[in-house]
This record gives sequence, structure tokens and C-alpha cells, in this order.
Amino acid sequence: MKKLNIGLLGLGTVGTGTAKILIENKEIIKKKTGANLHLKKAADIDLNKKRGVVFEKGTLTNDVFEVINDDKIDIIVEMIGGKTIAKEFIIKALKNKKHVVTANKALLAEAGEELFELAYKNGVDIAYEASVGGAIPIIKSIRESLAGNNITAVNGILNGTCNYILSQIANKGMEFKDALAQAQANGYAEADPTFDIEGFDTAHKTAIIASLAYGTKINFDDLYIEGITGITKTDIKYAKEFGYLIKLLAITKDLGNSIEARIHPTMIPINNMLAKIDGSLNAISVFGDAVGELMLCGYGAGMMPTASAVVGDIIDIARNILFNAKTRIPIAGFMPAQIKSKPVTPIEDILTNYYFRFFLLDKPNVLSLVAGILGAYGISIKSVHQKERNPQEGVPVIIITHLAKEAEVKKALKEISALDIVLQKPVFIRIEDDEK
Amino acid sequence: MKKLNIGLLGLGTVGTGTAKILIENKEIIKKKTGANLHLKKAADIDLNKKRGVVFEKGTLTNDVFEVINDDKIDIIVEMIGGKTIAKEFIIKALKNKKHVVTANKALLAEAGEELFELAYKNGVDIAYEASVGGAIPIIKSIRESLAGNNITAVNGILNGTCNYILSQIANKGMEFKDALAQAQANGYAEADPTFDIEGFDTAHKTAIIASLAYGTKINFDDLYIEGITGITKTDIKYAKEFGYLIKLLAITKDLGNSIEARIHPTMIPINNMLAKIDGSLNAISVFGDAVGELMLCGYGAGMMPTASAVVGDIIDIARNILFNAKTRIPIAGFMPAQIKSKPVTPIEDILTNYYFRFFLLDKPNVLSLVAGILGAYGISIKSVHQKERNPQEGVPVIIITHLAKEAEVKKALKEISALDIVLQKPVFIRIEDDEK
Repeated sequence: MKKLNIGLLGLGTVGTGTAKILIENKEIIKKKTGANLHLKKAADIDLNKKRGVVFEKGTLTNDVFEVINDDKIDIIVEMIGGKTIAKEFIIKALKNKKHVVTANKALLAEAGEELFELAYKNGVDIAYEASVGGAIPIIKSIRESLAGNNITAVNGILNGTCNYILSQIANKGMEFKDALAQAQANGYAEADPTFDIEGFDTAHKTAIIASLAYGTKINFDDLYIEGITGITKTDIKYAKEFGYLIKLLAITKDLGNSIEARIHPTMIPINNMLAKIDGSLNAISVFGDAVGELMLCGYGAGMMPTASAVVGDIIDIARNILFNAKTRIPIAGFMPAQIKSKPVTPIEDILTNYYFRFFLLDKPNVLSLVAGILGAYGISIKSVHQKERNPQEGVPVIIITHLAKEAEVKKALKEISALDIVLQKPVFIRIEDDEK
Repeated sequence: MKKLNIGLLGLGTVGTGTAKILIENKEIIKKKTGANLHLKKAADIDLNKKRGVVFEKGTLTNDVFEVINDDKIDIIVEMIGGKTIAKEFIIKALKNKKHVVTANKALLAEAGEELFELAYKNGVDIAYEASVGGAIPIIKSIRESLAGNNITAVNGILNGTCNYILSQIANKGMEFKDALAQAQANGYAEADPTFDIEGFDTAHKTAIIASLAYGTKINFDDLYIEGITGITKTDIKYAKEFGYLIKLLAITKDLGNSIEARIHPTMIPINNMLAKIDGSLNAISVFGDAVGELMLCGYGAGMMPTASAVVGDIIDIARNILFNAKTRIPIAGFMPAQIKSKPVTPIEDILTNYYFRFFLLDKPNVLSLVAGILGAYGISIKSVHQKERNPQEGVPVIIITHLAKEAEVKKALKEISALDIVLQKPVFIRIEDDEK
């Protein structure tokens, strides 16, 4: 039986899970590949930590370069994370002509192009299924299963922390801060949750997906990123009354000459497949000219689900090595020469539906003032609901719009905010609906 | 640019869709594969039919063997269906050392082993993603993405006709026959719907999935198959009251020494991912020791979604040919020598939860009579609901059980049916819940 040697860098959560699968599921992997995928070396700074995995003698080391420079190792699995030393180690591994498996979304989102080029130059693969959606086979589905499609859009719930918090607010009527505290207590959110709740984690994944789906280079800084900290239980409650749920959505669309790629709290119809994804799950919908809509749903994080995707990648590369078919699938989905730069549409230029919540003095004529300003900016109203009557005091007024341009929306809201009858800063939330 | 030639057998719905993608999406496929995947020949008995596809001159032929015996053709796409001539043509193609793509679930379920063996003997691939779940990449996910997992269960909604009918009954309170008539009117059901509504279509797909997930040979005749024609709106209504929906479910489990593989109407909790799949969609949940649960959802039928999967297979094989990596993935997911025969658990031996609906004379003590018989057969009651009181006449009584053995359930129901107080034949529906 052929033997392929694997070197692991980093024994954090996912690194340990990967080791666990390689060691404990060795026999089933042999049955499916006809090869012995052997974890030869694993490097970590802390070798004394109990990890619940029985490593073969001689596997563990403190020295990363003992792994990267081992001539017998075919595949390096980078599980360190971050954009500094992880990048250095991947570059060294690629230069040593070793295939690389990584889940490092931040690094790929910001330096993917450079690393992929180096991989091609050295005739090796970089696999990164676990970087987006954890266990969900979104990279493989786009690069392989849907390769016959022109992909037109990919939307996703890509951060379990945010989805858990928003689900708690929606299902239990909690306030944002209480839902966040509960997410932290249950291990769904970090002590410093900024990276998740401000949308940066989702943004890294969005950049990877958009590049892959549309064959484009994406400049990460061009993405529009808005987190969920401004979402209140009031808006979630009103959204429900209008048949919507609020999700932190990654929205990407191929508009032909440009790409939409934005991350923000989004109202979606409750009968939309993504609206049904509750709690810490992730889900991704891909739209293609042949496939229609395909939705994949699973655990976007966690030791074993993420490691499942890492091991899937290792097996893919192993099968390539066994058949001498390195770089059989283009790393970024398209042949390198075919990858184009397309601009990302600035947020001001997008056309979408909007939800506005105003808090207005309850006097005759206030609605016509607001509607008049919206109309002047070409914003057409789909429905208006004044929630309760409260003469001479403030009442919430909800407006849902037809398709409108964001720049005009912002101008209109600025003008409306300046009116005397407007008692609070207006709230606006983008809606992703089927209106074309 | 390298050119690979494709031959298509059969220009029915999916065959035509496949031609359409190969012709109309040729450029995007070039960008993703670096090769020209050229539809060289397409055979059909009716060449005069308008199909809305512009074929290159000389592509169409009446003669199947002009395609199968064309030396320049690398990949044969069998889109004829059925178990007779389609099988003959596939065998001939394999013997001519051509790779085969097919969506022929009936043929694969009943003769897959023989065809796979012939493919190995001739060093070529058989790809069959479109045979299960239409556009959904379930075969690829099991064979590749989840290859590091011991897969423990795969459950699916694999027939859009049945799901559409059951959704209509559940959502609109229709009777079965009216829902069926509407499915027929809307093109979701055939004029003769037997094959779909009696579960045979689902069963073919179940056999394929179970073989693949567990590395076993499945004797198709050992599957338990029960359709949805016995499902009434009454039971769907009661199911809802207990927090369940009724779906025609393909249930497969690896029990170690045996396999469960059964198709029947099943109550599942409304918060189960599969319960949220409405209308004609298909969805499949895979459970593995690392991945947890992964759900894939999409169009299980239809011209373009199914053709999307067929073209995904063509591209996979093309990439293998370009890298000289034929049979890179074992056709049935496991290396041929590792595939074992495991018996399918007879339906009488399964252990599951049950829903019973009795129609009993409303007299004191009738419940204790029924409960006594259930108890005598070791069937433990989880909850009982008598729907309304109607002294001296019949009332419906619903019982939900803890895990019970089917053989005992049938014996108990037979004994209960013989009681004077039982006014109608009892209804029983299996429940798939988390109780272990």
C-alpha cells in the first residue's frame, strides 16, 4: 500500500481535530483511497497540553521547520492562523514543493493571489475548503460540481456567532447585549467578539467565495462590511410582521462588468431557504444559470466539522499525488490566465429594497413630508405602516421601499433626519428580495 | 487548447439540457478546464423535434452506434433511461474504453456492481451524480468531501413529486387525491404517478446512496418500500399538533454488521432541517463521525438542474483525462476490494418511534385495554391524546411511542384491531426522532 506523509503545523482546535481524524479514521481512509495517509510530524509550541489524541512516538515537535523541511512529507497542513508566520511557513512549504492545506481565511482573502501563484510555480496544490463555511463543501461544489454553470450569485450565512445572536433575539425576544452574553457563555462567541459581530470574519470568507465563483481578483478593501451591533429586537420584531427575518448575509453577485460583494444585516423573506437556518449553523446558496439555487447547510465552525473539511482536502490532494495529477483543479476555480479584475460596486451604487424605521411626531401630514422627500429622490414606497397612534408624541413608522439606489437613500434619510418632526435617527436595513 | 469529444445518447429532457449547457456555456467551461469539451455527436430516434438548441452541423444522428463506436469520442453520456437498451449501450461504450456519464438510477440500483466492474476492467470511469437528488452534489460530497468520515446515516427527501404532494396537504389542508391532481396539473407528477408516489424512484436512489456511504453491496430487493398513498390530511394535521411533519423519507443507517435502508412516510420534528424542505425540492442530510450533520438542498429534477450535475460529471472526467488520472476516485466510493456485503435489516427488526391513530368507542376503560396490549408487547407509551369526547360513539386516540420493535408493533396492532371497541383499522406511521 502506498504511503503519503502529512505534516501538521499548529495543534489548536482544528489542528487537533485534523490529527484525531487522520489517526482514528486511518482505516476507513485507507479503504476509500487505497493509501496510508500518515501523520508523520505535528508541530506546536505547547507539547505538554492534553489533547485527547494518541500520537505515534516521534510525531510531535516544537520545531516547525522540522516539518516543513522534511523531505518525506508530501502535504503540509497549516493550522496556525493569522497573516504573519502562517504566511511565511506556507511560502516555505510551497517552495519546498509541498502541497498545502489551510483554513486560513484572513490570509487567503488578503494574499491568496500571491500564494496561488507561488503554488503554480512550484507545481503544487493549495486546498482551502475549511476556510469558508467549515464543514460545508462550498469550494468543491463551486469549483467542480457547478463548473458547467455561469454562477450569478452566492449568498451566505457564514458566521455562526452572528447567526446564533440574531436567532436568539428573533426567537426569544432578547436584547442584543444579552444574546451576545449568552453566545459568549455558550462558547459561540469569543471574549472579544469584534471580529465576528462586526462582519470581518464573514468578509474574509466573502472575498474567497466571490473570487472563486466569478473568476475575479477581489480587492478585500473594496468590500462593504457592516456588522450586527446596530440590530435591535424592535427591528427584528417589525421585520417578522412584514414576513422577513434579519440575517448577517454575505451577498455576492456577478453583474457582468462588476461584482457586488457586501456584508451587512439583511432582511430576507421567511420562506427563503437561508431564513430557515437557525442558531450557529452556516448555510450558503449558490445561484447558477443551470442549477437554479443550490443550498448547502452545516456546521461552520467547531473542532471536528472543520477538521472534516481539512481531511477532505488532504484526501483530495492525496488522490492527485497517487495519480500524478497535481493541480488537476485550478486553485481559484478558473485557469490562471482567465482570472480578470472586476471592480466591486461601491455600496452607494447598489440597487436594493430598504426597510426604514422612523420615529415621528404624531401630527397630521408628517407622513406626506417624509414620503415627499423619498419621492424627490426617486425612492418608491411599497408599503407604510404606522405602528400605533399617539397624538402629539412620537410613533414608529415603518416604510418598505421598492428597488432604490443606496446613494439616493442616504441623501433622502439625511434630509428627513433634519425635519423637526423626526424624533430619532432613522434606522435603515437593506432587504434581499426577489424584486428585480 | 486540448479538445475532448463527447457523445450524447438520448435527447429527452435532461439530454437536451446537457447539450444546451455544453453548447451555450462552452466558453465558461473552457475558462474553468482549459479544454474544449466538444459535443461531437448526439443520437436520438426523433431528429425533427424542436429542442431550442443549435447543434453544430453533423452532430445529430439516428444511429446510437455511430456515437458509441466513434474512435474520437472520449466520454459517452447515456440519457436514455430504463434498464434494457441503456444497459446494452453503456456496456458497449465501456468495452470501447469510453468513460460513461449517466443519471440512470434504476439501472445503477439494480446493475451498478456489474457495470462498475466492467468500467474498472476497461480502465474508465462511470459518473452518476445526477442519478440521486438531481442538481445536488451528494455523490461528490460523500465520495470526496466527507471521505475522512465514518458515515453513520444518510436521510433524504429524494422525490419532488411526493414532497410537493405532502407539502400541499400540510400547507393547504388538501386531500391526497386533490394534491396529486394539482401536482399533475403543474407538471410535478406523471399521468401515471405510481413510480413516484409508491416510493420506487426514491428506493433506487436510496440503494445508490447506501452502497456509496457505507461501502456495501445492497440487494435492491431487500429495501423496504412504502409510498405515500395512505397518508391523509387527518394524520398530517395531528402530526403538526405533536410537532411533526410527514415526509417520504429515505432512511439509511450503518448499524455495523447490517444496514438499515427503508423508504416510507416518516414523521420528523418540525425543527429538523429536512422538515423545512417544502414543495418539489429535494434535500439530503449526511451524518458522519466528524462532520456532524451536513444538509444539501436543491432541485431534484428538471431539465437544467439535472443537466448541471451531468455536466459537472463530464467536467470531472475531462479533468481526469487531461491529467491521465482515470478512475482517480473509486467509482463506488470505496476501493473495489473493500466493498463488503452487509445484510439490510428486515423492516420487522427495526427499532423506531411510532405514531398510532386509533378510532375507538368512547367508553371508560378502552384506553387501558389498548395500553395493556401495547405494554404486553413491550411497547412503551410516550404520550396519549384523545382528540374529543363523544360518549358511546367513536373518538380518535393518538399514541406516540418510545422506541419499539416493528415486529412487536405489528403483533400488538393486530391484537388491538380485533377488539370490539376498535371501530377502524388503526393507522401507524414511523417517527424519525432523536431518541436513542
